[in-house]
Amino acid sequence: MPIITTYISKGCTKTNILSTRKYNMITKEEIQKWFIGLQDRITTQISATDGVGTFKEDAWERHGGGGGRTRILTNGRILAKAGVGFSAVYGQTPKKILQALNLPEADFFATGVSIVMHPISPMVPIIHMNVRYFEMTNGTSWFGGGIDLTPHYIDPKDARWFHQQMKAACDTHDPTYYPKYKAWADDYFYIKHRQETRGIGGIFFDHLMPTVAADGTDNKAELFAFVQSVGNAFAPTYSHLMTKNHELPYTEAHQKWQALRRGRYVEFNLVLDKGTKFGLDTDGRTESILMSMPPMAQWVYDHKVEPGSAEEYTQQNLQKSIDWLTHPDAD
Amino acid sequence: MPIITTYISKGCTKTNILSTRKYNMITKEEIQKWFIGLQDRITTQISATDGVGTFKEDAWERHGGGGGRTRILTNGRILAKAGVGFSAVYGQTPKKILQALNLPEADFFATGVSIVMHPISPMVPIIHMNVRYFEMTNGTSWFGGGIDLTPHYIDPKDARWFHQQMKAACDTHDPTYYPKYKAWADDYFYIKHRQETRGIGGIFFDHLMPTVAADGTDNKAELFAFVQSVGNAFAPTYSHLMTKNHELPYTEAHQKWQALRRGRYVEFNLVLDKGTKFGLDTDGRTESILMSMPPMAQWVYDHKVEPGSAEEYTQQNLQKSIDWLTHPDAD
Repeated sequence: MPIITTYISKGCTKTNILSTRKYNMITKEEIQKWFIGLQDRITTQISATDGVGTFKEDAWERHGGGGGRTRILTNGRILAKAGVGFSAVYGQTPKKILQALNLPEADFFATGVSIVMHPISPMVPIIHMNVRYFEMTNGTSWFGGGIDLTPHYIDPKDARWFHQQMKAACDTHDPTYYPKYKAWADDYFYIKHRQETRGIGGIFFDHLMPTVAADGTDNKAELFAFVQSVGNAFAPTYSHLMTKNHELPYTEAHQKWQALRRGRYVEFNLVLDKGTKFGLDTDGRTESILMSMPPMAQWVYDHKVEPGSAEEYTQQNLQKSIDWLTHPDAD
Repeated sequence: MPIITTYISKGCTKTNILSTRKYNMITKEEIQKWFIGLQDRITTQISATDGVGTFKEDAWERHGGGGGRTRILTNGRILAKAGVGFSAVYGQTPKKILQALNLPEADFFATGVSIVMHPISPMVPIIHMNVRYFEMTNGTSWFGGGIDLTPHYIDPKDARWFHQQMKAACDTHDPTYYPKYKAWADDYFYIKHRQETRGIGGIFFDHLMPTVAADGTDNKAELFAFVQSVGNAFAPTYSHLMTKNHELPYTEAHQKWQALRRGRYVEFNLVLDKGTKFGLDTDGRTESILMSMPPMAQWVYDHKVEPGSAEEYTQQNLQKSIDWLTHPDAD
């Protein structure tokens, strides 16, 4: 896998000073290597669950430094289109980031794994995951990420089960994480112009910066372990939902609704998603950024759901602050 | 048509001071009334050309002041989905506009007609038109607008003919308009992240502010007359292309390409179009803003066109600075 050594050898010359600091015992090389392994494991597991589709890889290089490998599965048994991207890029920190976070000029290194999966059946939810690490030559570093689920049709029992998985991934690290990051996901995945959430949420976190204790040790290893738990939760969680729901019967009417929900997914990603905006603004690789687009989407002017329908139930529950863990509909 | 008088009576109390100024002989009431008539004429003419589809109207009110009437045709003989919106809104000028144009705080009044039409056949182009007028209580006012064409398949003769219509609409007012506004359209309708233009362009102009001559007269009436010529050019131009091309044969492969081009249209509108962004940012009526979305769009990861194909010809000619008036392919 020559790509790994390429990134490591090219990407880090300016940050060697960091390795002398006690709080940087977890290096970006380790994090990057773990993300590469995560991409491998997720594509293997999801492809096995699908049973037919296999991931095809495109390795790419970034003009300003670094690159990635984008893996796409199309026309599977359960999945219509699934993208699992790894990237490790470095170079001059974009002015937008420096301004937004009030940081001095410095080079950056960023690595992560990004996933969006669009199933064939409207009864299987769309899923998204991202785990990422960002480091600057001035010593600033942070983790970010999350997993969120977008069912075309909300099944409250599935919603509860999904949030239980997210809570479990959080709770082994810190009992305050799940409530905090669940609320953050509700806020982040909110389509303001539609006054609805993208799906049933999940967890979202960003700028988790290591803090240094009085004795000079820091919690970077703990933060990384948390991000690893999130990454590891992805494949078993989604495999379960794929397997459980893909044989449920559905009609053309369900597919029509799925196409409209995919339209909302497009709206969120192109209008609101910060990762997408940042990628497109900074000349990222367009095909890798927009692998999140559904295979097909529809728009119907002023579409109204039938009163009492499953579509209405879904639409009414695309709202912030719903606690699926205790929701009576899931009992 | 009670909507007209409502806007006029409600929308203008704060700008009556303007009516005493010599350079404001063309009032916003006249402009608004002309735009309402334009919407009527365009929907009548396009519906007649389609032969089957009729426009359904939604009248709506804006929370902060004003409203509009959105007219949508779906499932016609030639058109799949066509939206023709009129609006006249007023209230506090959004901070974003004040900052962008370095203007002092003042209330605004804005009126315009916006159009996007998506045909059924991949052989008929998508078209967009907008004409608008903006006025502030501090006396600032301007016109903006344009028409641009997005063929799924570029026909160089059609491209030349379309640009001839745009040039004709410009030339009766000022021979410098067409070259200037053609270049502006090339820049505005550019999908940076795809390194391609949305279509074959057309004309685009904004912030055309009346200037006052030494004798105290201004050119507002001339600017308005130009905007009227643009508005009047829409229906005959598009009717001609609808009629000429809708019976051309096409296959599923052509429809597949059409769906991908519609995906790019979505990308432009949601990622880059200033009107869409502004509307969504300022709590505009979402369904009226997003009437521009195609009925259906597709995304295929890293799609490549066949060498020598009509798709390749189109892709290669989605570039700025192509002069269709003199292009040898159109001879």
